[in-house]
Amino acid sequence: MEILNKPLWNDLEKSIHEPARLALITRLCAEKDGLGFQDLKSECGLTDGNLSRHLKVLEEAGIIHLHKVGKGRRSHTCVKLTPDGREAFLRYLYSLEKVLHGALDALELDTAEFPAGLPLAAS
Amino acid sequence: MEILNKPLWNDLEKSIHEPARLALITRLCAEKDGLGFQDLKSECGLTDGNLSRHLKVLEEAGIIHLHKVGKGRRSHTCVKLTPDGREAFLRYLYSLEKVLHGALDALELDTAEFPAGLPLAAS
Repeated sequence: MEILNKPLWNDLEKSIHEPARLALITRLCAEKDGLGFQDLKSECGLTDGNLSRHLKVLEEAGIIHLHKVGKGRRSHTCVKLTPDGREAFLRYLYSLEKVLHGALDALELDTAEFPAGLPLAAS
Repeated sequence: MEILNKPLWNDLEKSIHEPARLALITRLCAEKDGLGFQDLKSECGLTDGNLSRHLKVLEEAGIIHLHKVGKGRRSHTCVKLTPDGREAFLRYLYSLEKVLHGALDALELDTAEFPAGLPLAAS
């Protein structure tokens, strides 16, 4: 069964796949000059601890780069997507789309109709 | 920014989102009568321990139902998607699609062109 090709779901890079990190990377995509720690925190609705933990995973994977901006009391941490991170995210989204289409095929749903409405049974 | 609407990525149900569980559920979607433990194991390329662990999470979330089939040495465990599990998976896929489209928008990529080829810079 092609949808179960192991590399298909194994391609979902775990450093990106976690929902909060998915939100962080998506937000950073649109900011070529990077975004401050406090802005990211409030926009993604994360606590200091959670944001720090997720940024550490992303930094170690080479997806983001952290640097200090300004001096003294006005200094703050700026978070920026790296070129490698952007490429990794594109690869991830490509894999994600294949997984999504594989699942819709398995459910025998019409892919083209899916975005228009969720065919759920009345609950 | 609409793509950062917190509920969007929070809607990615964690019991489903894990890549191996995504593969397991996708496989079970196509089997109305369920599938044996050994078949699932080999088709999804998982070890006994990993499969057991993931099935436990899915069973506790009400997504699958496990039952014994046959007696004595011929008995085996059969795994089946529950009606609630199928609905939860549809909701998950719907959220996943929104996340994917949000990310493509943030990257300013043409959604319609994305499946045709991954616009990566030459590396």
